[in-house]
Amino acid sequence: MPIITVEMWPGRTREQKAELAKAFTEAMVKIGKTTPEATHVIFVDVPKGDWAIAGKLSDDTK
Amino acid sequence: MPIITVEMWPGRTREQKAELAKAFTEAMVKIGKTTPEATHVIFVDVPKGDWAIAGKLSDDTK
Amino acid sequence: MPIITVEMWPGRTREQKAELAKAFTEAMVKIGKTTPEATHVIFVDVPKGDWAIAGKLSDDTK
Amino acid sequence: MPIITVEMWPGRTREQKAELAKAFTEAMVKIGKTTPEATHVIFVDVPKGDWAIAGKLSDDTK
Amino acid sequence: MPIITVEMWPGRTREQKAELAKAFTEAMVKIGKTTPEATHVIFVDVPKGDWAIAGKLSDDTK
Amino acid sequence: MPIITVEMWPGRTREQKAELAKAFTEAMVKIGKTTPEATHVIFVDVPKGDWAIAGKLSDDTK
Repeated sequence: MPIITVEMWPGRTREQKAELAKAFTEAMVKIGKTTPEATHVIFVDVPKGDWAIAGKLSDDTK
Repeated sequence: MPIITVEMWPGRTREQKAELAKAFTEAMVKIGKTTPEATHVIFVDVPKGDWAIAGKLSDDTK
Repeated sequence: MPIITVEMWPGRTREQKAELAKAFTEAMVKIGKTTPEATHVIFVDVPKGDWAIAGKLSDDTK
Repeated sequence: MPIITVEMWPGRTREQKAELAKAFTEAMVKIGKTTPEATHVIFVDVPKGDWAIAGKLSDDTK
Repeated sequence: MPIITVEMWPGRTREQKAELAKAFTEAMVKIGKTTPEATHVIFVDVPKGDWAIAGKLSDDTK
Repeated sequence: MPIITVEMWPGRTREQKAELAKAFTEAMVKIGKTTPEATHVIFVDVPKGDWAIAGKLSDDTK
């Protein structure tokens, strides 16, 4: 019963998310030996202003 | 100090969330032997378009 | 398709976890209008030495 | 490669988040012996109406 | 800077995890337009006795 | 009521975790205007073999 959670910056379209969900599920089923129905994929869009790398918010353009 | 996180599709009303929080906390206190004050319940509404099952986004009506 | 994640200190027995899972699922179904089969409950035991409150690890007895 | 996730009520300004990210990263690098570039900080604003303590939603003023 | 977290029952070998990480990262880069270096994949093995479906722990054979 | 979750490779000692918890809590209180008692810090040690970067498990020495 795998749950795959994807945290990323906003910007991916619905089509990209649909393709990603399909690709992740196929890999999980093929490699991880589970069923498609048991596989959940959850996307979490994290605004750049809420995601810091190296101590700096990612929408900081300075 | 239990933290109970509930990820679900949007649509529950404030009243439903209030009732769920009360029920989860009472179960945690009674069964899990903790205090109400120590029990946190966090609701996360995940849009259907961000939640795929069997490789398909859940708002896909095709 | 609710996913209920419970983070808590270790110490609950298998029986307590089974009872908690049952109680959470029943509340979710009754109040949140979903099905039992769609409801997942995941327990995460967090050692007291990995959980700080007020800046102090919870197994600190000083 | 530490990932620091901060769940809190909304209300902190961009400046506060920038300062928090800086402080957390500096502590992680100094105490945890990692590099700034490897340190991610993610902020998640959880509405008070989605966060219950002692079985009561936190925006409940009654 | 996507972070892909995979919660699943234990049992996958190191080889399976390595293959899954490779497949998820390739899909993320190709479909999600990011770089391999920015893509993290984290596996979390959740014991069956800590994962309930339909109110029943998953190692319950009754 | 901030909850700060820190995912990192294993290896930090109890003393380092105690210092990190103290530093994170002090920053949260000073910058984020909350109380120490309301601030939780949770450490999650993720084995290198469960954390891939650029599609490669982090304990892969090849």
